Amino acid sequence: MSITTARGFRSSGVAAGLKSTGKPDVAVVVNDGPDRHAAAVFTANRVAAAPVHWSRQVIGDGRADAVVLNSGGANACTGPEGFQDTHATAEHAADLLGVSGTDVLVCSTGLIGLRLPMERLLSGIRDAVGALSADGGPAAAEAIMTTDSVAKTAEMTGGGYAVGGMAKGAGMLAPGLATMLVVITTDAVLPQDTLDGALREAVRTTFNRADSDGCMSTNDTVILMASGASETTPEPAEFQERLRAVCADLARQLIADAEGAAHDIAIEVVNAASEEDAEEVGRAVARSNLFKAAIFGQDPNWGRVLSAVGTTGARFEADQLDVSMNGVQICRSGGIGEDRDLVDLAPREVRVVIDLHAGAETATIWTNDLTHDYVHENSAYSS
Amino acid sequence: MSITTARGFRSSGVAAGLKSTGKPDVAVVVNDGPDRHAAAVFTANRVAAAPVHWSRQVIGDGRADAVVLNSGGANACTGPEGFQDTHATAEHAADLLGVSGTDVLVCSTGLIGLRLPMERLLSGIRDAVGALSADGGPAAAEAIMTTDSVAKTAEMTGGGYAVGGMAKGAGMLAPGLATMLVVITTDAVLPQDTLDGALREAVRTTFNRADSDGCMSTNDTVILMASGASETTPEPAEFQERLRAVCADLARQLIADAEGAAHDIAIEVVNAASEEDAEEVGRAVARSNLFKAAIFGQDPNWGRVLSAVGTTGARFEADQLDVSMNGVQICRSGGIGEDRDLVDLAPREVRVVIDLHAGAETATIWTNDLTHDYVHENSAYSS
Repeated sequence: MSITTARGFRSSGVAAGLKSTGKPDVAVVVNDGPDRHAAAVFTANRVAAAPVHWSRQVIGDGRADAVVLNSGGANACTGPEGFQDTHATAEHAADLLGVSGTDVLVCSTGLIGLRLPMERLLSGIRDAVGALSADGGPAAAEAIMTTDSVAKTAEMTGGGYAVGGMAKGAGMLAPGLATMLVVITTDAVLPQDTLDGALREAVRTTFNRADSDGCMSTNDTVILMASGASETTPEPAEFQERLRAVCADLARQLIADAEGAAHDIAIEVVNAASEEDAEEVGRAVARSNLFKAAIFGQDPNWGRVLSAVGTTGARFEADQLDVSMNGVQICRSGGIGEDRDLVDLAPREVRVVIDLHAGAETATIWTNDLTHDYVHENSAYSS
Repeated sequence: MSITTARGFRSSGVAAGLKSTGKPDVAVVVNDGPDRHAAAVFTANRVAAAPVHWSRQVIGDGRADAVVLNSGGANACTGPEGFQDTHATAEHAADLLGVSGTDVLVCSTGLIGLRLPMERLLSGIRDAVGALSADGGPAAAEAIMTTDSVAKTAEMTGGGYAVGGMAKGAGMLAPGLATMLVVITTDAVLPQDTLDGALREAVRTTFNRADSDGCMSTNDTVILMASGASETTPEPAEFQERLRAVCADLARQLIADAEGAAHDIAIEVVNAASEEDAEEVGRAVARSNLFKAAIFGQDPNWGRVLSAVGTTGARFEADQLDVSMNGVQICRSGGIGEDRDLVDLAPREVRVVIDLHAGAETATIWTNDLTHDYVHENSAYSS
């Protein structure tokens, strides 16, 4: 049920002809309240798409009544005309829903640098509004897919309230591969400033640590909406934990479905002097093409791990670094450890643990390997 | 003639059995003076190989009598024993040459995390010293190859003195793909501090702007040695220009021979507010796997250029960015420009020009595309 697990929400997904395949490509999510609290986090890319510029304005007052999402076109790098297209999208949905256009968030995903076919999109929004239902979550999750092979949803219920979400894409918020769009709903009663803080904290350690290929999208958006329809006010810490769990679940699904990947790789940095150090080290390894190609080849090439660690400013001594892969400590004290032939890299999930011996902090970055299919899919995407 | 074009130098390359292929793998370069001035630049990687630690000490006094280079093993992440191996290498060469071990630079390249077969290496050094000759430059250039498909040399003569060089690798100094090793010789009469400044300046705009795959090696080393044998003292500016030309020639050869690449890509950033801004923007694009895969697919995907530019802190406005590929301005004012079908990406050399409209500074970063062969070669390298 994903985003319609929480009470107070209706959703839908329809085919508007934006995708040449004829698959669903327009989704609408409506918050029927009583609360319309919302928070959102956007790409840090300075070349942001028109819908990002628009939605940043909408979220400014902490209220959102609806979200319109389309696949089949990112509406990025489309100039003032592209922004007008987004504006028209929001106003059209608002008219149909009887709300204000300034309370309608817009998300787009697809190829950069192409105008959207507005006639089809507006017609599709009309269809989507007509199809809104309290069990429309799965249809919406399907309509936002681009190169995704499966729709991605998650939910947690209990204690009188629910948190549910949907996601598309294969990558991260900042940076991100292609576009990551996420909508999360809850029927908990929560003030807007609690939502905003909880979302930022949850994103920081989940979507922001899923780094499939190091590329940052122009369109990444994560939206959280609260309807209050459960009439339950959770403890903030409990809500935070549940929100984080839903985000982590969705982030893991994004990595598992990354374009062309053959391995999902958890890079766990332990005993760092700070969480920032741990994250910097994990990200440096996650962005080493040599390391990623080695994992594709099932080659436990720990030298490529160390050479990536060495590019960071994190606190460590080179002769104290330990590295293990799938439980085998192949690098000890910066040098040769266990026999590398003991490492089995056949399973899809790979766990690399890097011990900095510099403190007590930890962070895990998720990434993918670099494969022939990645090159194939990304060399042929727009042609 | 490469490094033996300049008078006062002898060199050689022999097969010592470090490579399983039986190809040459040990080279020696000797400066017979009268001057023994030298300068060197090393990888910025904090996980530096044993020969880098050693050579940093050797170069401290600005004097080097000889360089010993081996392929077939990087001697990186090999602990105190690896450092002792490098020390023994230098002392062995010094004994044979009748010089001090602390004046012998050592460079190694190959797989990280393996001890060198010292018996073979020391025996090979004896053979190489016996084979030293004033026309041994090409043999040395051949002996330092690893995955290189051709030996890389360059030279410029005139005005009574010469500058010559050899290089191996496919990438950059900081960062660098696999290991880049470069030795440059001159018979000009130049004080040591002139050498050092000239080398740093030349490297900054040549090797440091060749960024094949964003990975920084543990072993990168660029050495410049001056014999004074020509008895010619050039103008510093003229020498600087000639040294830069030789470095640029070698850097271009490294990109042209990058592992698995199908395109050499010049990313020229113009009208930047500073040279640093221009370099940051060029490097961000050079490190976008999505952009690099698109070029492999001959897809002029300028959206991927803009989304990489947007990740930087350089001064620009997103709606003022222009991008052209091979002469066609496909992005104008941050939006759609000329028809992308006009761009011909079939030639090996691709020129991307990014106009930031923020100043008058320029920098060009050279990189390669991301190909099936890159994935293949780097997923199978150590196995």
